Amino acid sequence: MANVSNKYTFERIDKNDVALLVVDHQVGLFQLVRDYQGDEFKNNILAHAAIGKVFSLPTILTTSAETGPNGPLPKEIIEMHPDAPLIKRNGEVNAWDNKDFRDAVRATGKKQIIIAGIVTDVCTAFLALSLRQEGYTVYANADASGAISKRIADDANDRMRDAGVHVLSGFAVAADLMRDWRNTPGSKELLPFFDKYFASYGYLARGHAAAVDRGALLDGETE
Amino acid sequence: MANVSNKYTFERIDKNDVALLVVDHQVGLFQLVRDYQGDEFKNNILAHAAIGKVFSLPTILTTSAETGPNGPLPKEIIEMHPDAPLIKRNGEVNAWDNKDFRDAVRATGKKQIIIAGIVTDVCTAFLALSLRQEGYTVYANADASGAISKRIADDANDRMRDAGVHVLSGFAVAADLMRDWRNTPGSKELLPFFDKYFASYGYLARGHAAAVDRGALLDGETE
Amino acid sequence: MANVSNKYTFERIDKNDVALLVVDHQVGLFQLVRDYQGDEFKNNILAHAAIGKVFSLPTILTTSAETGPNGPLPKEIIEMHPDAPLIKRNGEVNAWDNKDFRDAVRATGKKQIIIAGIVTDVCTAFLALSLRQEGYTVYANADASGAISKRIADDANDRMRDAGVHVLSGFAVAADLMRDWRNTPGSKELLPFFDKYFASYGYLARGHAAAVDRGALLDGETE
Amino acid sequence: MANVSNKYTFERIDKNDVALLVVDHQVGLFQLVRDYQGDEFKNNILAHAAIGKVFSLPTILTTSAETGPNGPLPKEIIEMHPDAPLIKRNGEVNAWDNKDFRDAVRATGKKQIIIAGIVTDVCTAFLALSLRQEGYTVYANADASGAISKRIADDANDRMRDAGVHVLSGFAVAADLMRDWRNTPGSKELLPFFDKYFASYGYLARGHAAAVDRGALLDGETE
Amino acid sequence: MANVSNKYTFERIDKNDVALLVVDHQVGLFQLVRDYQGDEFKNNILAHAAIGKVFSLPTILTTSAETGPNGPLPKEIIEMHPDAPLIKRNGEVNAWDNKDFRDAVRATGKKQIIIAGIVTDVCTAFLALSLRQEGYTVYANADASGAISKRIADDANDRMRDAGVHVLSGFAVAADLMRDWRNTPGSKELLPFFDKYFASYGYLARGHAAAVDRGALLDGETE
Amino acid sequence: MANVSNKYTFERIDKNDVALLVVDHQVGLFQLVRDYQGDEFKNNILAHAAIGKVFSLPTILTTSAETGPNGPLPKEIIEMHPDAPLIKRNGEVNAWDNKDFRDAVRATGKKQIIIAGIVTDVCTAFLALSLRQEGYTVYANADASGAISKRIADDANDRMRDAGVHVLSGFAVAADLMRDWRNTPGSKELLPFFDKYFASYGYLARGHAAAVDRGALLDGETE
Amino acid sequence: MANVSNKYTFERIDKNDVALLVVDHQVGLFQLVRDYQGDEFKNNILAHAAIGKVFSLPTILTTSAETGPNGPLPKEIIEMHPDAPLIKRNGEVNAWDNKDFRDAVRATGKKQIIIAGIVTDVCTAFLALSLRQEGYTVYANADASGAISKRIADDANDRMRDAGVHVLSGFAVAADLMRDWRNTPGSKELLPFFDKYFASYGYLARGHAAAVDRGALLDGETE
Amino acid sequence: MANVSNKYTFERIDKNDVALLVVDHQVGLFQLVRDYQGDEFKNNILAHAAIGKVFSLPTILTTSAETGPNGPLPKEIIEMHPDAPLIKRNGEVNAWDNKDFRDAVRATGKKQIIIAGIVTDVCTAFLALSLRQEGYTVYANADASGAISKRIADDANDRMRDAGVHVLSGFAVAADLMRDWRNTPGSKELLPFFDKYFASYGYLARGHAAAVDRGALLDGETE
Repeated sequence: MANVSNKYTFERIDKNDVALLVVDHQVGLFQLVRDYQGDEFKNNILAHAAIGKVFSLPTILTTSAETGPNGPLPKEIIEMHPDAPLIKRNGEVNAWDNKDFRDAVRATGKKQIIIAGIVTDVCTAFLALSLRQEGYTVYANADASGAISKRIADDANDRMRDAGVHVLSGFAVAADLMRDWRNTPGSKELLPFFDKYFASYGYLARGHAAAVDRGALLDGETE
Repeated sequence: MANVSNKYTFERIDKNDVALLVVDHQVGLFQLVRDYQGDEFKNNILAHAAIGKVFSLPTILTTSAETGPNGPLPKEIIEMHPDAPLIKRNGEVNAWDNKDFRDAVRATGKKQIIIAGIVTDVCTAFLALSLRQEGYTVYANADASGAISKRIADDANDRMRDAGVHVLSGFAVAADLMRDWRNTPGSKELLPFFDKYFASYGYLARGHAAAVDRGALLDGETE
Repeated sequence: MANVSNKYTFERIDKNDVALLVVDHQVGLFQLVRDYQGDEFKNNILAHAAIGKVFSLPTILTTSAETGPNGPLPKEIIEMHPDAPLIKRNGEVNAWDNKDFRDAVRATGKKQIIIAGIVTDVCTAFLALSLRQEGYTVYANADASGAISKRIADDANDRMRDAGVHVLSGFAVAADLMRDWRNTPGSKELLPFFDKYFASYGYLARGHAAAVDRGALLDGETE
Repeated sequence: MANVSNKYTFERIDKNDVALLVVDHQVGLFQLVRDYQGDEFKNNILAHAAIGKVFSLPTILTTSAETGPNGPLPKEIIEMHPDAPLIKRNGEVNAWDNKDFRDAVRATGKKQIIIAGIVTDVCTAFLALSLRQEGYTVYANADASGAISKRIADDANDRMRDAGVHVLSGFAVAADLMRDWRNTPGSKELLPFFDKYFASYGYLARGHAAAVDRGALLDGETE
Repeated sequence: MANVSNKYTFERIDKNDVALLVVDHQVGLFQLVRDYQGDEFKNNILAHAAIGKVFSLPTILTTSAETGPNGPLPKEIIEMHPDAPLIKRNGEVNAWDNKDFRDAVRATGKKQIIIAGIVTDVCTAFLALSLRQEGYTVYANADASGAISKRIADDANDRMRDAGVHVLSGFAVAADLMRDWRNTPGSKELLPFFDKYFASYGYLARGHAAAVDRGALLDGETE
Repeated sequence: MANVSNKYTFERIDKNDVALLVVDHQVGLFQLVRDYQGDEFKNNILAHAAIGKVFSLPTILTTSAETGPNGPLPKEIIEMHPDAPLIKRNGEVNAWDNKDFRDAVRATGKKQIIIAGIVTDVCTAFLALSLRQEGYTVYANADASGAISKRIADDANDRMRDAGVHVLSGFAVAADLMRDWRNTPGSKELLPFFDKYFASYGYLARGHAAAVDRGALLDGETE
Repeated sequence: MANVSNKYTFERIDKNDVALLVVDHQVGLFQLVRDYQGDEFKNNILAHAAIGKVFSLPTILTTSAETGPNGPLPKEIIEMHPDAPLIKRNGEVNAWDNKDFRDAVRATGKKQIIIAGIVTDVCTAFLALSLRQEGYTVYANADASGAISKRIADDANDRMRDAGVHVLSGFAVAADLMRDWRNTPGSKELLPFFDKYFASYGYLARGHAAAVDRGALLDGETE
Repeated sequence: MANVSNKYTFERIDKNDVALLVVDHQVGLFQLVRDYQGDEFKNNILAHAAIGKVFSLPTILTTSAETGPNGPLPKEIIEMHPDAPLIKRNGEVNAWDNKDFRDAVRATGKKQIIIAGIVTDVCTAFLALSLRQEGYTVYANADASGAISKRIADDANDRMRDAGVHVLSGFAVAADLMRDWRNTPGSKELLPFFDKYFASYGYLARGHAAAVDRGALLDGETE
């Protein structure tokens, strides 16, 4: 029960103390995702990986039985993170059950984790709950976790929230990492990122730039 | 059956040959409308009346049993059209059954009619079908007709379409009347109209004007 | 977990101890909002600002990089609050990171805050969580916060709820501020407010007034 | 293809030349209906039968294999039409394939038919299409036909529309039969009917009656 | 955060220790409700009142400014509870602010309250939160509380849940009050109640009764 | 435009003059289908094939590039039709472009065709339109055609309807083929079919059978 | 309120310490379920029972008044669990109120319970809350619990969550029980299970197997 | 009315007789589109332009008042078609009213046109209807036309359909142009195109390729 007299601590994402996990974003499992349109979801998982890149976060990739039906990771993600550990689990559903994966996460030395995976109710949720038990602060990028139905995703997200996981959009993850447009990375790095992965904002900025560069008022147009 | 080899004639709305009807947009009947959110629908019926004003179209207002549960027209509409005929029907559901209304429509001498009303399946549809039988070309502004459910509105619109009625948005009605931003009325008259009644476009134009007037590029921002 | 044996304290909005924040309701950011129809959302953000006016609440306006793509505030809001502080942030995403904004909020001396902003998951949520950490009781006017999707708004509202934020409608905010129709402000001030911004209630009252003034029973009509 | 230059004939429902059919509104088949909420759909099928009663239309009831899973008609319908023919089909899916039913319909001597049934895509649609082939003008009361899904109902209604069936709401059926509130049946008979079966309008009228009888303006309330 | 190791106490509704409140189910306010179809919602508010009757619960009716736009209670509800206190508030939005209402609730001597009202986010939620503060266990019958949108209702229900209110269906309220079909009231009293207000179950029972009384197996039909 | 004065001919499905086509129901293409839940759609495509079996219709199977990403047909379908022609197209998108397929269809000597396939807008629609051009009467089983979105399916179904294709449910296809529960195939063959593939009807019949066999009335239960 | 500094314990489902309950999955009650499509829901309740079988979990079946309208369990479920206790309750709504049922649950000696039932807000929720009070860890398989509406199911699931119940998908239940594809049961047992009950994954695996066995690359196809 | 006895002609898209139009896909107008998610719609308009490229179709670009709020075309589209005519209209809403545009279309010498634009109800529909009047066969790529709401798009698409326009998906446009995977362009050109713009199919192919290249069967996995 929300108790407004309780002290609340707002733990913000700290770009210096956070790692990013790419969990089972495999091209086979991708087919199971029905709570996002296909092209939108492809965009979202690439955006998730790109957050790691634009903020230079320690990033860990993992897959489940990738020579089986689940398939490999999209090559774009691997190319974006050529030096990231890629832990290929041969059987463990929950990545935390895999020693190599645990070691890789612990080796980052970070206490905050940004996570996204397929499917939300299994690969994302199980790992997120294990991370919470380990004491990590967990930020689940909801845009980049997919499930067999919106309803199943909602239940899984509620389950994670009940365990103290922060469930938020990729836009919010990026904004909290940046904090100020004047920082580095700031508008110089993030506007190209938004242009590529958040079309609504990207095209808003393009329209603004065109207006500044060579716009003209129509008759009857006012602020 | 669509037969692409048939000759198709695209009859556009001619601002010199069209009248606009405001049918039973009464504050009591307004309560029945469940296929639009309330504030949106109020905006839409005012926009409908305002189309008549901005294009100086002959406009006819009508109400059904307005001292009863249906109530009066919103005062904004009456104030917008102080000289328009207001036909108060005492019993006829279909406005075309009322001689004064028929006379008022015929007196405009127009052969195209723009129509909207509450509720879509009764007041709008019955009148639209009668007008079609009379030989009028009918444009139903779907934004400003409301029904008890979206499903009932869909069926009513399909029924009108089957009778040759053009079912279209208020934005399309205004755009077809204007045709060219350089006309009169054109951008000078329509941009204020859109600013008032089509917020998405209005605020787009405000943002553009601000960018032209005093915008500045952010670091990293490009067209 | 809800624990019905816990003591619950219902902290109501106190018109003498509350300030109202207008956060980044900018015409550029307005374009990103997809969880409300455009004209409805314009109505809702104007209603949010008008709550400050009708209850004479200390009101603070803020914008983010307003010469950039985000654009300026709608002029209606600025005209409604000519004397309110307008804090133009040049880079901080979370308004609480801006010293002038913090000072303005603290200068009100209030311990309750009503908030709404664009986009819900970033500008509204980050600020609301910071305010909670500062010990403020926070009321988020959900009608006037907009996001890129309904789903993202839901997650953001859940996140705020988990931090003890009260997420509620603008109608509920106004009703809790008024408390009794016989107060000042009461029906005399609020009915015109509802007439302007809550069309369903406004037109209900118009229909009632018309019935009282000059209504007549139809044959067969009974209470 | 809609061809606005074609002559359109608007055939209105003529209370003196129309019969009403209640098709397989059986309590077992009722369970299959998923495109309306249960209590709403019960209300709608009773309203359908009541249209026959309030306008004194020749009414024919029919059931399919009613001692089987489909079950009997609701007793309210039978009690409303104690003298109506009730054709119990032992095997025919399409009621028109049953000679007794055909005879009963033809015995009415009417050329217009109002129809509703369960399920929309089978019992309603097959009969409606047969009636169209026989030359009847058919009005399908969409509120009172139910299907396994909204999607299946949409397809079935489109199929009927393609055969020239008028698909419309129960409210529209009643309004077209009444035509003028001053007729008999008119407001005296229809307002109680709406009060019982169309709650939104019924309660609107109750509120109006109360306002006329003993309403008082609140401070600040205006038309 | 759900903590499964915490002890959980399941407080069931006790027909001997519960009162039922009918809050502002007025015919004017009824028009504002957009999260339920009209006939369904009328059914639901009558079912709510009928729960008080079938279980002989102390029942309290209240209205807000009923000579104004809000209008009177439906006469069916008053007729169902001729002896129940009907507290007509002249100005208080939150019924708990009205002394007569508080006295009436306290006079029941019950510590559990079943509540429903219009609109969910104001009349229902404010009262429910006040009751929680007073120490009552509160059961909100969600079927019989209506709001301007589903979204607003969801937020209001979440707010109540955060205060420890049990938000549940009318069916669940009735089932928890009955507990065993062999009790009094039990199937003898509840089956007619379900038949009237829960059509899906009512018609299921009718079909079953018909099958027991005079059903016959079709060729090919098996359990 | 629907013209009610036109003569309408209702062409029913004739079990003696119809063939059934299974078009590209391949396990790879199955992944693209987002307008039905997965288990529901699997059920629907098996039901489609089973219609051919229960009515002993000439049935033709076809696949597109089945060693590629599209994959093979589900083995259940092949096992259901061991003697049906299975035309493996190596490149043609529209099956009608393949001579073997055209020959197989023509060899049935039927003039009506029941069709379903993946995806609706390509494999189903292209073939259906070609069959219409060839003069066949085409019945598209909408339950068993799947598309990337509901919206795309709607457009494709509208396109087929505009070409005179009958778009209807699998239930309607089976009911029109059977026509009378006393026929062969009739209830004896169809009830087991419905029990397997149309759970709502199947379980309704099971409940009825149980009630007939060994049901007992509860206290208070009446027809 | 989620408090990220709290220690969180992730209690996973332990196949050696869990029992599975099948609650009132009766063919009559099945008709009430409107939050899942019929064939999908039939699949889901069979999948629920099959989880007990594939993991050899102690399984208990129960029914409510099964000679009445609620009807018997589907025979598939009984055949799957010939040796499981089947507790036929004659009156108790909440199965926990039945001594035989309590004894059967306690006799399993397990402290975790997987549950699903019809309807979610009554049979599932009441029992789940009682089990929580008894100290069991409860996992509610949301796929296999059905309600009269999605909205009612959502409220019931929220109520269970507030009591510490884990609400999750059937897929997540199975995955947490298996934990590792190399376990027993593991892929050898679960892939056939998924093939039967989770079509999206099943057909993904079939497509993969076909590609491994006899797939060929198309021109232009790359990983 | 669909008349199955009518001769139907299926006019397929002929890559040698078709031109492609990009209509007002401007970054300002992009903000108005609410019937597709932003990233999905950006993908769809790029896919539309890419169809012209992959099939080497004559392509014409046009914009409306691009120095005003509507903004310029996305640079990706211009870069894809460096040699295509780009007709910048200074005032005409309907591109067909612009002589340069008409000349450019006529200069292609094609009699089929593929079209998409923003917004659907104005820029796309007006032009499509004019093209139909001119005798062109028009294929509207629905994926790449956007409107202020899904509802407005539906009405606009119905209006186009009534004029004989083929409304279909981008996937169907591409498939009809290719016709056979062995053609040129065929799988070699189209698989990379699908990989880029139709993620569901693209990732299906990647998974297939990986399985062919280096897939292995899991224990229990069968076709």
